[in-house]
Amino acid sequence: MRDQTFTLDATLEADTLSLGRMGLCRVLLMNDMRFPWLILVPEKPGLQELIDLSAPERAVLIEEIATASEALKSAFSPDKLNVAALGNRVKQLHIHVIARFVSDEAWPAPVFGVGTAVPFPPHMQGMLSDKLSAAMGLESL
Amino acid sequence: MRDQTFTLDATLEADTLSLGRMGLCRVLLMNDMRFPWLILVPEKPGLQELIDLSAPERAVLIEEIATASEALKSAFSPDKLNVAALGNRVKQLHIHVIARFVSDEAWPAPVFGVGTAVPFPPHMQGMLSDKLSAAMGLESL
Repeated sequence: MRDQTFTLDATLEADTLSLGRMGLCRVLLMNDMRFPWLILVPEKPGLQELIDLSAPERAVLIEEIATASEALKSAFSPDKLNVAALGNRVKQLHIHVIARFVSDEAWPAPVFGVGTAVPFPPHMQGMLSDKLSAAMGLESL
Repeated sequence: MRDQTFTLDATLEADTLSLGRMGLCRVLLMNDMRFPWLILVPEKPGLQELIDLSAPERAVLIEEIATASEALKSAFSPDKLNVAALGNRVKQLHIHVIARFVSDEAWPAPVFGVGTAVPFPPHMQGMLSDKLSAAMGLESL
């Protein structure tokens, strides 16, 4: 049963488009055309570290990371996938899954903190949300 | 059974001290006193992405990440843990598990590519390797 006391961090909410949810995580798309960039947020209150999850929850999480990775791989054919749980600025546990290209603005450095986000135009948001949500089999929120 | 054809990437080998192994991963300590920084390398040849592992292997991996996280938390009481699989430069699949401090040189940015590594003096290497290996219950190589 989903924890009704979970609230998405305000910064994550402001920076992303919400795509839906998997069994454990809410799935967000960073609103930044420069990088195909998903963020998974386990919908339980008070989490900051991977080790704040139970072992069974971590087993679910790693498969949801794999699902997000496969969706990005299939949609964008990236040169590399980057997966990271950092949380130095935004404390709520969240996992970045990012499709990287040798041609992208940050390559080969990590994307975090590089330049300024370029938001998707509205007509791109719907198309991309639909495609990625379908690829991951997401429930709507 | 361990895959005898696995060879550690030369850059990873040059930059780290080898601590031992868990069930799936070789465990390395980045030879950089500025950050307590473990690297887990699944000992199978040809891996680049988390999704190159099978689901059962990923389930083992996430628990080995948790074990490394707990060892760093217990030894160093960090302000935050950072976990990342990037691989933009070094292609062999490897997972960073890093203890971060508000007082560290890179905070709050990720540590990757920040400044220049400060190697441990030899007398620190043995002490730290022993402590971390014991905390993780590592087999020796």
